[in-house]
Amino acid sequence: MREFNIAVIPGDGIGKEVIPEGIKALEAATAAFGIQLTFTWFDWSCETYHQTGKMMPDNGLEILKTFDAIYLGAVGFPGVPDHISLWGLLLPIRREFDQYVNLRPVRLFEGLASPLANKAPGDIDFYVVRENVEGEYSNIGGVQYPGSDNEVVVQQSVFTRKGTDRIIKYAFELAQQRDKHLSSATKSNGLYHSMPYWDSRVEAISADYPEVNVDHFHIDIFCANLVRMPEFYDVIVGSNLFGDILSDLGPACTGTIAIAPSANINPDKTFPSMFEPVHGSAPDIAGQNIANPIGTVWAGAMMLQHLGCDDVHDVMMAAIEEVIQRQESLTRDMGGIASTQELGDAIVAAI
Amino acid sequence: MREFNIAVIPGDGIGKEVIPEGIKALEAATAAFGIQLTFTWFDWSCETYHQTGKMMPDNGLEILKTFDAIYLGAVGFPGVPDHISLWGLLLPIRREFDQYVNLRPVRLFEGLASPLANKAPGDIDFYVVRENVEGEYSNIGGVQYPGSDNEVVVQQSVFTRKGTDRIIKYAFELAQQRDKHLSSATKSNGLYHSMPYWDSRVEAISADYPEVNVDHFHIDIFCANLVRMPEFYDVIVGSNLFGDILSDLGPACTGTIAIAPSANINPDKTFPSMFEPVHGSAPDIAGQNIANPIGTVWAGAMMLQHLGCDDVHDVMMAAIEEVIQRQESLTRDMGGIASTQELGDAIVAAI
Ligand SMILES: CC(C)[C@H](C(=O)O)[C@@H](O)C(=O)O
Ligand SMILES: CC(C)[C@H](C(=O)O)[C@@H](O)C(=O)O
Repeated sequence: MREFNIAVIPGDGIGKEVIPEGIKALEAATAAFGIQLTFTWFDWSCETYHQTGKMMPDNGLEILKTFDAIYLGAVGFPGVPDHISLWGLLLPIRREFDQYVNLRPVRLFEGLASPLANKAPGDIDFYVVRENVEGEYSNIGGVQYPGSDNEVVVQQSVFTRKGTDRIIKYAFELAQQRDKHLSSATKSNGLYHSMPYWDSRVEAISADYPEVNVDHFHIDIFCANLVRMPEFYDVIVGSNLFGDILSDLGPACTGTIAIAPSANINPDKTFPSMFEPVHGSAPDIAGQNIANPIGTVWAGAMMLQHLGCDDVHDVMMAAIEEVIQRQESLTRDMGGIASTQELGDAIVAAI
Repeated sequence: MREFNIAVIPGDGIGKEVIPEGIKALEAATAAFGIQLTFTWFDWSCETYHQTGKMMPDNGLEILKTFDAIYLGAVGFPGVPDHISLWGLLLPIRREFDQYVNLRPVRLFEGLASPLANKAPGDIDFYVVRENVEGEYSNIGGVQYPGSDNEVVVQQSVFTRKGTDRIIKYAFELAQQRDKHLSSATKSNGLYHSMPYWDSRVEAISADYPEVNVDHFHIDIFCANLVRMPEFYDVIVGSNLFGDILSDLGPACTGTIAIAPSANINPDKTFPSMFEPVHGSAPDIAGQNIANPIGTVWAGAMMLQHLGCDDVHDVMMAAIEEVIQRQESLTRDMGGIASTQELGDAIVAAI
């Protein structure tokens, strides 16, 4: 019997609504395979912050370290500035646990309408491989002469050889297994130091992957192309910020960003990896029980895959595909009228 | 008789092909109004760089300073790294001439098919107001331990109170004249110093514009929303990088980015402003005589508007609209088969 201990952090807003549905699906899917998941819940969130002044306890990371994986809903809520909530919970987990790969599949499912004209399933089917622990996301910098007319704010991006190379290699490996086509996001015409460096590392590493076809697009035209010809892309590699942008824009082209999963992976398994939907806490719809749990279920499937249970992953994905295709119990963002639970139940039934 | 001296820099690739068409349109449109334009050509480009090691002569900016406006094609070509070509020509002009506003109208014309499903003219009609001289575009930073496994690259973004406030105010003023709806692009959850600062300045300045409705979107979801509901937006304000991204993505949603213009404005008129298409030098189609000159013509119209000739601007815009609507002599990117000159001629005829 395979057993795994999962830390669950529902977080804020709709995170609290979608995580229970993900767990329902995970329990249903693992049961048939004799896999035992033990879920330990942590109510770390902006609410915690209001009560304690901290997003998680001081020994939060020590606690999480002992788990096989982390399952997270969403972080951030009005009342706590975003840079406080995110740098207090989500980002330190990614960083301290060296989850340097953020893997985000983007796929148009049969049964969902793309906002792009004339796109069918198969036309949108790619992976965004996003650098997840350095780059533009940085707390180095600050304000000089605060509050005065002379205020100057600096914000440092930091790219290391180690951090840049390992994400690019990961993307090449993935491209090698797929269509052997890698597209790198850059902006070397504007960002004088970081992006020319990024480009030079893509070029250097490409020598080890002679079969992989590599191209480069500045992030502005990359976004434009994603809308004009999503079928062109297979594996995309981008820095922390550019990967973030492309992995929201991509899912938007598949009908709803709420179905998209995000796997924060430590490929060396020195620390637990973390799985979450791409979407945020969505304060505008929180509490209405209309949030779409599919991104969370898909993230759960990726978690089981990461834990070596490909069989469970495949069952969960088949269930998601089936429910969407049958147009059964879809939530509002997918054109339906079902509640979060009703869609969760439909997925469990399909499993 | 109104007279203006225009510096013309066709630059690289299709820049050389579209600029003559823009000039033809400008000459045709000004003739009727008794306006005299004198064009002085400068062949500064990547070719110049190959010959002289410089993108423009050392006194290039001194020379340009004496003109009423600058009309630019595109800069950058394979063989010269993008950060060399752009920081050698386009970016110093924007900066030294304090062209701190980059104004980019985005509009879906009658007769062009949006790649977005079910969008009609009127659904896409907004302005991107982009900060143009500071922010993420910075040459501060560098490489430590170059060439070694310990390489660290830092890239500094710089936001000043002066630079941030003036672009935000410009955007509020524009919003005030239009639908009183301003959307600010941010990423304050990831970029710890710069974007929370940006947000705080938007909030501070909004107090002076109580009638303007303001919202904020992180750049990832902003891109997603632009595809899902472009009709929501009216005036968008963004930093140098975020404005760049949104002003390529926006035009992509209008059918072709080749029609989009970019006005690099010094509102104080202490130095000449510069007008160019949004598109780049497009090495892939250069020399084929299929480049779409409409972005360049529209940029020319904005130049005349900046010089106080609203009448000429309006005539040129009417001609663009008419030609597109009649589906006359359209280039390949718009679904036609016309050459660059044929489309240019059609615009002149419509004028
Ligand atoms: C060529 C490049 C430096 C430029 C920019 O990023 O500003 C271009 O993309 C633009 O939008 O004008
Ligand atoms: C909430 C935010 C910090 C986060 C990010 O930008 O990484 C989110 O947008 C994501 O993509 O996971």
